[in-house]
Amino acid sequence: MRIDIITLFPDLIKSPFESSILKRAINSGKANIHLHNLRNYATNKHKQVDDYPFGGGAGMVMMVQPIDNCIKMLKKSRSYDSVIYLTPDGEKLNQKKINHFSTLENIIMLCGHYKGVDQRVRDHLITDEVSIGDFVLSGGELAATILCDCIVRLIPGVLGDESSALTDSFQDDLLAPPIYTRPANYNGWEVPDVLLSGNASLINNWREEKSIKNTQKRRPDLLK
Amino acid sequence: MRIDIITLFPDLIKSPFESSILKRAINSGKANIHLHNLRNYATNKHKQVDDYPFGGGAGMVMMVQPIDNCIKMLKKSRSYDSVIYLTPDGEKLNQKKINHFSTLENIIMLCGHYKGVDQRVRDHLITDEVSIGDFVLSGGELAATILCDCIVRLIPGVLGDESSALTDSFQDDLLAPPIYTRPANYNGWEVPDVLLSGNASLINNWREEKSIKNTQKRRPDLLK
Repeated sequence: MRIDIITLFPDLIKSPFESSILKRAINSGKANIHLHNLRNYATNKHKQVDDYPFGGGAGMVMMVQPIDNCIKMLKKSRSYDSVIYLTPDGEKLNQKKINHFSTLENIIMLCGHYKGVDQRVRDHLITDEVSIGDFVLSGGELAATILCDCIVRLIPGVLGDESSALTDSFQDDLLAPPIYTRPANYNGWEVPDVLLSGNASLINNWREEKSIKNTQKRRPDLLK
Repeated sequence: MRIDIITLFPDLIKSPFESSILKRAINSGKANIHLHNLRNYATNKHKQVDDYPFGGGAGMVMMVQPIDNCIKMLKKSRSYDSVIYLTPDGEKLNQKKINHFSTLENIIMLCGHYKGVDQRVRDHLITDEVSIGDFVLSGGELAATILCDCIVRLIPGVLGDESSALTDSFQDDLLAPPIYTRPANYNGWEVPDVLLSGNASLINNWREEKSIKNTQKRRPDLLK
């Protein structure tokens, strides 16, 4: 899988790709991730990438031209399955959508910054608008990194233990059950007896029950 | 405001704090952000921070002891308004909650990794469990960074233009209207005439209408 991230601040998200799961996926060749500095695609003499909004108002707007040029350049070399714009008013991201993205071959992610991109970018160049939640970030960079992390960890062979992703929250519309590790007693805080019983079917039942109870209590909407 | 982030991978989230809004907030002294490597608080000889889950199953569990020690150390120097655990089964983050967090003085954020933390950490040490969305990340690091970014940009004086944050999506339960910048005509893609009219009240009406229409179409749940 190849992911091209277009951003005004490539330095902002350098470190997440040089550490942990993303680094491992990149080093093993399972994920090919490229950061593109939008400023390099500005054609006017001041390398301008943003401008005041038509009609007035606070904040700056990212211009069409540098984004159009960058996407054109990328599309010259390969075709893309999806051109994603990260924006708070996009379609809400969920695990199902991530599962879908993880099956694609080439993806572009465009990070908005300031007040966002010129609407004509969204109307003509973007295929998917994705929001990671009902809150406002300084820019789409961290959202794009989140999306990369979610997608890349689902590529077969990226996580050390294949079955680990399958027992995560949301993969079966249930929250995960509580987990415990040693010591069994930490300053009087004890692990539930059943987990120490060695009885696999008792443990499985307990976990299933806890998963359902957790979901009923915290996220009844998932059970519908 | 002071934010202490406890993590197994401080390097993973180094760059977001050295760039853009977060950097500016830190340099101006408006936000004080500290990364703590959990491994430094492990007391056994292998500096062990995770272990197999009681009862079996895939993935590793983060141990109570290093987390307890790190939080105890922090609490020796000041009191904390909130100890947040970033977890996919936590309470869903929204702009209202972020507005609240932005008024606090001292916050601890604990980043889970692998299958998460021992349940006893959540039962005894955590005051707020926060999820940024219905999807699974490799760890809480990127979620904590998102939360920091959302909070810090609301601290007065951090954003260049104070009114900019107030016109963001969600601050009034409406999505933002479309925005445009120069040129008025880009390869035949045109800006709506009203925005070029110079008539402020027409423009305001158009924006309000578009905001409501956008919200009705994309996020009718926000209008309830």
